[in-house]
Amino acid sequence: MAPASSPERRPPGRTAPVLPRLALTPGEPAGIGPDLLVRLIQTPQPAQLVAVADPALLTGRARALGLPLTCLEYEPDSPREPSPPGTLWVRPVPLAAAVKPGRLDPANAPYVLATLRVACDLCLTGALDALVTGPVHKGIINDAGIPFTGHTEFLAQQCAAQPVMLLATPGLRVALVTTHLPLSQVAAAITAPLLTQVIEILHRDLVARFGIPAPRILVCGLNPHAGEGGHLGHEEIEVITPVLETLRGRGWDLQGPLPADTAFVPERLTGADAVLAMYHDQGLPVLKHLGFGQAVNVTLGLPIIRTSVDHGTALDLAGTDRADLGSLRAAIAMAVEMVRGG
Amino acid sequence: MAPASSPERRPPGRTAPVLPRLALTPGEPAGIGPDLLVRLIQTPQPAQLVAVADPALLTGRARALGLPLTCLEYEPDSPREPSPPGTLWVRPVPLAAAVKPGRLDPANAPYVLATLRVACDLCLTGALDALVTGPVHKGIINDAGIPFTGHTEFLAQQCAAQPVMLLATPGLRVALVTTHLPLSQVAAAITAPLLTQVIEILHRDLVARFGIPAPRILVCGLNPHAGEGGHLGHEEIEVITPVLETLRGRGWDLQGPLPADTAFVPERLTGADAVLAMYHDQGLPVLKHLGFGQAVNVTLGLPIIRTSVDHGTALDLAGTDRADLGSLRAAIAMAVEMVRGG
Repeated sequence: MAPASSPERRPPGRTAPVLPRLALTPGEPAGIGPDLLVRLIQTPQPAQLVAVADPALLTGRARALGLPLTCLEYEPDSPREPSPPGTLWVRPVPLAAAVKPGRLDPANAPYVLATLRVACDLCLTGALDALVTGPVHKGIINDAGIPFTGHTEFLAQQCAAQPVMLLATPGLRVALVTTHLPLSQVAAAITAPLLTQVIEILHRDLVARFGIPAPRILVCGLNPHAGEGGHLGHEEIEVITPVLETLRGRGWDLQGPLPADTAFVPERLTGADAVLAMYHDQGLPVLKHLGFGQAVNVTLGLPIIRTSVDHGTALDLAGTDRADLGSLRAAIAMAVEMVRGG
Repeated sequence: MAPASSPERRPPGRTAPVLPRLALTPGEPAGIGPDLLVRLIQTPQPAQLVAVADPALLTGRARALGLPLTCLEYEPDSPREPSPPGTLWVRPVPLAAAVKPGRLDPANAPYVLATLRVACDLCLTGALDALVTGPVHKGIINDAGIPFTGHTEFLAQQCAAQPVMLLATPGLRVALVTTHLPLSQVAAAITAPLLTQVIEILHRDLVARFGIPAPRILVCGLNPHAGEGGHLGHEEIEVITPVLETLRGRGWDLQGPLPADTAFVPERLTGADAVLAMYHDQGLPVLKHLGFGQAVNVTLGLPIIRTSVDHGTALDLAGTDRADLGSLRAAIAMAVEMVRGG
């Protein structure tokens, strides 16, 4: 993979804001999201962080952790400046019910989604520069009778856009053509229009958000050995190769379709900017082997910048100081990098 | 993963031969197989190696490489002793046509398969203890009008047995339930009888061949997030979980079904002896990322021990000294370990 891009590589015409302003949603209030946020802001941050949450939740959790916290209410005319350690800008959204760490309550499911809606709107209007999301609990939202398959799909609907899921860890970025789909439905979902759209979004955002002028993308085949010339499946011949040939006509550096088991060999990754996998379990095992605890989930294709932690709500660790801050720090660092255009 | 097993862990009743005797098939004669073998035996080996090949091919390649080689004809009453460096036991099988390094010739396809048949028979009769295979070229065998999908399937047919493909590299063993199948056919192929059979073979051979008394096996789900409670597919609920529950009744340590993207996280692999993936590209990207050039392909489930290099014929390197010996050395070391019962 290419090293982190330098400011000189930013496409001409883009100006970076002086200090990035990030919306942070702590996610499930009974999980570790509030804990991580309270612990994080005890030290200086590389951006102005604006939590979208109930201030009482955060101050309550701070007390439980024995840490200082003063919430500053964020308003449209709040100054663009970081808050000192131990203080945090907060755009208030009220909880529906009191929270006990580790205890899920469906009554607060609408609260979780309200924080996402408010945070997304603050980014869509340009008031804030990017959204960093903490972990939500899909099950409890569904238990509350609200259909919800994940942040990515929810935000795509809010923004009326086609999302592309990208996971990143130092040295490796993996994007997915299909995401949360039963394996039996994957082959039929790999169509030329979808693949074209995903590659267009990935290429555009690698240029615009990551400051890579001419990204090299390794594209996996769908079948073992990338179909081995049609002996192990025809999707490479009928769908993937024609799409790649067409898009290469734009001068894009698209390698493949590659057998997935050799696409991730270290010498192949050297010099590549992203791997595009056809489905979830083809692309993510290597990424998570390399980056668990430090990986960042990025949604491309939206009109807003969105990064996320790559872990769950860890209910058993809520209210303790044992949860790892690594993924949240990495998600913030990547949001800052993307706001600055790479 | 557990450290390499010690002799004390061998199941009672097994006796190891004094010096393992291995059949070696160099594979495609125009590829790097003969080169690797000639270079390998310039130094002492941990076993008596018996090449099953045309001696003229080997001596010719030795001349091209400027290396000494004397072939000793292997016969049923040949002594069980290693050959000194620069000499090699050979069970002759005649080429059909002269060989030029790097130039495939369909006339020699029957020769390649004859070496495999002879070597397999030598192991089935107990004359030799294990088979180590070099790379063959599937395409040229098919071009010769002979149906051939790979060593694994060919040897399984010779032995009339159900094979299980296992890839191994230091620190990780990955077995596959399905192997060279188009992705669209994978879900339907995951049946309770197949899964049961594969786990039985894997468990038995981890005990008998690798000397692991109570193997811990991590079993992946089929769908992303292992189906997420049925939201992303039902095969975990309907097939995989019931099979695992039944087999756990035998006291076996079977973890799962696990989401594939977390099954390979380093902390999860610690203490596990193998990961069982449902299909090729779910299991092999991490294995090959970690072990490319040193990975060994093992066929379990056969009445013989068989290991193989994990690379192709590298036609452009044939007749040069630039091919890497790492995978062949690793395949021999693993065959020796398996002959000794772990």
